[in-house]
Amino acid sequence: MGSSSFRTGVWLVGARGSVATSAVCGAAALAGGLVDPVGCVTELPQFAAAGLPAYGDLVFGGHDLVGIPLEKRAQLLADGGVLAHRLVDQVRGELRAAEAEIRPGVSAGDGPDRLAEDLASFRSRLGLDRVVVVNVASTEPPYRPGDPLPPSALYARAAFTADCSYVDFTPSVGARVPAVAELATERGLPWAGSDGKTGETLVKATLAPMFAARALKVRSWAGINLLGGGDGANLGDPTVARSKIASKAKVVSETLGYPVTGPLHIDDVPDLGEWKTAWDHVSFEGFLGARMTLQFTWAGCDSALAAPLVLDLARLVARAHRAGRSGPLAELAFFFKDPVGARTHSVEAQFRDLCDWAAGLGSAA
Amino acid sequence: MGSSSFRTGVWLVGARGSVATSAVCGAAALAGGLVDPVGCVTELPQFAAAGLPAYGDLVFGGHDLVGIPLEKRAQLLADGGVLAHRLVDQVRGELRAAEAEIRPGVSAGDGPDRLAEDLASFRSRLGLDRVVVVNVASTEPPYRPGDPLPPSALYARAAFTADCSYVDFTPSVGARVPAVAELATERGLPWAGSDGKTGETLVKATLAPMFAARALKVRSWAGINLLGGGDGANLGDPTVARSKIASKAKVVSETLGYPVTGPLHIDDVPDLGEWKTAWDHVSFEGFLGARMTLQFTWAGCDSALAAPLVLDLARLVARAHRAGRSGPLAELAFFFKDPVGARTHSVEAQFRDLCDWAAGLGSAA
Amino acid sequence: MGSSSFRTGVWLVGARGSVATSAVCGAAALAGGLVDPVGCVTELPQFAAAGLPAYGDLVFGGHDLVGIPLEKRAQLLADGGVLAHRLVDQVRGELRAAEAEIRPGVSAGDGPDRLAEDLASFRSRLGLDRVVVVNVASTEPPYRPGDPLPPSALYARAAFTADCSYVDFTPSVGARVPAVAELATERGLPWAGSDGKTGETLVKATLAPMFAARALKVRSWAGINLLGGGDGANLGDPTVARSKIASKAKVVSETLGYPVTGPLHIDDVPDLGEWKTAWDHVSFEGFLGARMTLQFTWAGCDSALAAPLVLDLARLVARAHRAGRSGPLAELAFFFKDPVGARTHSVEAQFRDLCDWAAGLGSAA
Amino acid sequence: MGSSSFRTGVWLVGARGSVATSAVCGAAALAGGLVDPVGCVTELPQFAAAGLPAYGDLVFGGHDLVGIPLEKRAQLLADGGVLAHRLVDQVRGELRAAEAEIRPGVSAGDGPDRLAEDLASFRSRLGLDRVVVVNVASTEPPYRPGDPLPPSALYARAAFTADCSYVDFTPSVGARVPAVAELATERGLPWAGSDGKTGETLVKATLAPMFAARALKVRSWAGINLLGGGDGANLGDPTVARSKIASKAKVVSETLGYPVTGPLHIDDVPDLGEWKTAWDHVSFEGFLGARMTLQFTWAGCDSALAAPLVLDLARLVARAHRAGRSGPLAELAFFFKDPVGARTHSVEAQFRDLCDWAAGLGSAA
Repeated sequence: MGSSSFRTGVWLVGARGSVATSAVCGAAALAGGLVDPVGCVTELPQFAAAGLPAYGDLVFGGHDLVGIPLEKRAQLLADGGVLAHRLVDQVRGELRAAEAEIRPGVSAGDGPDRLAEDLASFRSRLGLDRVVVVNVASTEPPYRPGDPLPPSALYARAAFTADCSYVDFTPSVGARVPAVAELATERGLPWAGSDGKTGETLVKATLAPMFAARALKVRSWAGINLLGGGDGANLGDPTVARSKIASKAKVVSETLGYPVTGPLHIDDVPDLGEWKTAWDHVSFEGFLGARMTLQFTWAGCDSALAAPLVLDLARLVARAHRAGRSGPLAELAFFFKDPVGARTHSVEAQFRDLCDWAAGLGSAA
Repeated sequence: MGSSSFRTGVWLVGARGSVATSAVCGAAALAGGLVDPVGCVTELPQFAAAGLPAYGDLVFGGHDLVGIPLEKRAQLLADGGVLAHRLVDQVRGELRAAEAEIRPGVSAGDGPDRLAEDLASFRSRLGLDRVVVVNVASTEPPYRPGDPLPPSALYARAAFTADCSYVDFTPSVGARVPAVAELATERGLPWAGSDGKTGETLVKATLAPMFAARALKVRSWAGINLLGGGDGANLGDPTVARSKIASKAKVVSETLGYPVTGPLHIDDVPDLGEWKTAWDHVSFEGFLGARMTLQFTWAGCDSALAAPLVLDLARLVARAHRAGRSGPLAELAFFFKDPVGARTHSVEAQFRDLCDWAAGLGSAA
Repeated sequence: MGSSSFRTGVWLVGARGSVATSAVCGAAALAGGLVDPVGCVTELPQFAAAGLPAYGDLVFGGHDLVGIPLEKRAQLLADGGVLAHRLVDQVRGELRAAEAEIRPGVSAGDGPDRLAEDLASFRSRLGLDRVVVVNVASTEPPYRPGDPLPPSALYARAAFTADCSYVDFTPSVGARVPAVAELATERGLPWAGSDGKTGETLVKATLAPMFAARALKVRSWAGINLLGGGDGANLGDPTVARSKIASKAKVVSETLGYPVTGPLHIDDVPDLGEWKTAWDHVSFEGFLGARMTLQFTWAGCDSALAAPLVLDLARLVARAHRAGRSGPLAELAFFFKDPVGARTHSVEAQFRDLCDWAAGLGSAA
Repeated sequence: MGSSSFRTGVWLVGARGSVATSAVCGAAALAGGLVDPVGCVTELPQFAAAGLPAYGDLVFGGHDLVGIPLEKRAQLLADGGVLAHRLVDQVRGELRAAEAEIRPGVSAGDGPDRLAEDLASFRSRLGLDRVVVVNVASTEPPYRPGDPLPPSALYARAAFTADCSYVDFTPSVGARVPAVAELATERGLPWAGSDGKTGETLVKATLAPMFAARALKVRSWAGINLLGGGDGANLGDPTVARSKIASKAKVVSETLGYPVTGPLHIDDVPDLGEWKTAWDHVSFEGFLGARMTLQFTWAGCDSALAAPLVLDLARLVARAHRAGRSGPLAELAFFFKDPVGARTHSVEAQFRDLCDWAAGLGSAA
């Protein structure tokens, strides 16, 4: 069975952010055959028979607190070199359609009731088979049990209340608040998270198993992330950054099985805009005490790295929902820095798990 | 079944080179419990039940054309920061024992007959269960069918003639000359190769699958290797380097399934001594045409990277010999840049193949 | 005395190349106040009183062998991220005016007579005070005495024949052929060269004096340059690259006063387009034999680095011409990799020489 | 006049630290002709006629709070690859002589009176012409007016009380406390500081003028310093690091004349020992808005970089003392991150100032 037709709502929390804007533009461009599916995992041959919704079957809406319309945001991304100006012209209709489905978001302390209604209304008005809510809003400070529920958890609860599936693309707590996760299980809804693995951590998680397999002893693994844009401004705040640093730092020591010294910084460098640069320095010991190093510099565009994964996750989680899967989807660990329920941080092992799972979906409902 | 006692000869072609010297020192240090087995793949838990010969059961000899004794070579390595001076003192006895078993090597054009006799004599005089010949000599220029057999092939033929197994740790043709490979099969002997994957290529082969799994399009992959020592002087010769460059270049395009532009240089920089530094620059395309880059710099000690793999291979091939395996051992692809019979260049997939195979050995003869 | 009004012809050899196109766009944008003079040395305060022609007084023409018009070339540069699309629209008139003054260039073997006539006609038709010819064409293979004169020398000879000044922005031999240099002296014309110092060599020439001043001993200095575009394709040819590599390699050993091992590569990596990336690795020795390294990676846009220097040189050489200077201008060493008559490779010393000279120009004719 | 014979005491505050130990070993090795003067600025030809004390005329003593003797410290440095083991054997006598002149240091709150007596006793007992006190102790937290005098200021005051000259090789406040600086002036004593410019900042101060001279606009300059040893442990404390970060950060914006965004980190990575690695990322804008980057990685040995400068400064300040100079020596800015009274951060301009000054010394008393 190939790509199957079912109209799927993709409700983006942070719908006017860079990642969301790139995702909406990209889905339209892919549906229209305007671009090649570069960066799209679910367009690899391994997913051809998984019965995923086509890009043209994705319908976008979302919540946001800021008022700059999607067309304007797309224009700004094109000015920043993320998208071609020509492409923005070509998908203007789809940007307007998505813009018409954006509703005001919530701040900490707001009541969540309206959120679920927004979702139910989106599904019924547009005649969608199902809706997947994807959180691509700004990272929140770490959540501690007993705190009032932060917006990410309100959105996740609203998703489950309205019988939608849910994806945590940020390190915010979201569906991981126990009461919210239980709600998903009760209502038989699947969800996935947390924190999209788009750049430096992807490389770390790829390299760390190499040291393990060669019995080389990693002595320290230091890293610095320079980024601009809204993400830079938000993560430049040390309190907020703590959430992200925690999910980034686990990968190395959990893969190697021993603690590794590792200063890890996230800095706001506004002139970099949507582009981010990470430098990592790995000091390791080899045979007979020889001291060696590996350094890498990753220079990427944050929204171009994240947006196709948002589309991949929306397609996969919507498909899992249709197939009747419920609760956290550990098989999607490949996409996340801090994967819920994952057995390994190895990128390659996670990719095999994902492909095996996708193969199984092909024969599901 | 744990580590089993069987006395195994390790006959090093290039027995007075840096890699061989480090391997002899290291085996003695490991046997004596003087160092931790850092860099030793076969000391990982996955190999505990494979029935490999213990480090203390390895007995060294070899061929070489140069006359500087092993003790002196070890001293020079210690001066260069590769080994601790203290360690050289501690393993002086073992260095002398190995030195006593080094015989003159052959140059292109020499008759090979004596080589097999040297091997047979080594085995019988020292009462060894079996002998594995490992080529760690200087890389030869590329071999073309019809050329006279180069030394690497003479050594491989001598190994098989004398009922020894064989490992090609260099890119030289060795056992891959068809008539030589057939001899191994006729006589039921296992062999492995080619070209130890110790540094830059290990990182390349680890990273390339990441780009594939994420559907990112690699547009170019350029690299430069700076190295000193005898290896630098030898590979700084463009004719000789061609062998090595060819085995290094395959990895990326064979992993990705499409041709990738990739200038690749090996340069002799004498002041670096045993240390080598490689820089790679990967230019890749992401979603909607975004252009991104990954760079890495690897700074390692060549002999410290190679020597433990030589010991790993000697243990594994000797064990395969005892288990009755014959012909090229594709399961050892993990160790090689240009692995004979390998199904994949993915380091992680190769490691799984290796571990599965080692697990199977545990129940073999 | 501030910027003085005198209409100056800038005749670009390679007038439809990326550097020339960027220079024409940039001069128009600067004249119109559309952009800040970033990258423009002659807009620093030290040059305010030198009496240089204003950007609006520069009138462009040139020779080229290719037929793609300037407007189209500017469009392609904008697609490649070198210029803003908006800017191309704003300077369309100036691009067309320059396009109307482009004449067919010569190949090796052509007679040069027509070239001088093209220059004289340009000056008289457009009523220019004087004309400076700037060679920004593709690099030629090295010239040996006795060879037929290559195009760069034909252009230089034509410049001097037509009473124009001349700038060698490439490593081609140009005005350095003795008979051509003598012609300049005979006719009292100034010229400058060779090989614009835009990227890696600028950094090398800045860093090398630091090692000298600190008495640190550089043991090797290796470098690799990855570049695309026409320059990449041309310099990817090893014969041609030899000219450029020779001018790049001198800097370090001439600054330090002793020979330094230094593999140096220039590679064509087409996907990089106008962008070039250089990596340098410096191995040096410190106190009591300590071994240390400095690496740098420079990622720049070739035409954006070169174009403002072309404008700087045109302004300065035209001014020198007006002031009656004749022969090679050693004071412009700051701009060149292989500066004619220079006393030092130190970037800072060259900058002081330049500023001192410019100050002297202020009181000249 | 060449190197003149006058016996000069060098009193090291932090006399058993890595820098001090390397300085003592190095002076002995240089005096004995055992090593070349690599890293020794004052051995360049420009200083040949300055009348500096010879290495053999330097006599060492100092204060320290830790009790590990110099011989043991030198042994540890050799184990860490900083010095050759052989060298330690060769200078054992000199290490013991210096060890015999080490007195207990002070902590915050101690009375300073004894310190001046230690200095006077050292000078008289050993018959020294003069003594220069050099602070190479751990960096202190920032000093605010009104705080009790920290040890660095107590040592500086003691130096001046005892008619010694003084060098602040750390960012600690030392002689910059106004009352202490006034004491130096009153007593006609020279001093120099602050914070030896040994690595990353040396490279920054070398590169920043290049951007200025080329009119390139630096948009951000981020940096991270990884270091181990006692310095790493001390500077890993954010309060202490503030002193050092402040002196490092000034260089770029003061050179360029406009504020530059620049996250700057110092991290303790214990496994690096005496070695430190810094990575800097410079984002800059060129012509017509083109965005470019320069990255560098500096991997050096802290004590091998600092020790020869300590010797240079001791020789120069002792010579200035003899020549009757008084107060802060702005001409020594070349050696410092935060140079007292300096007119420029340009390394090359500072080097010229230094050489000019040294030339003047040759004809002084």
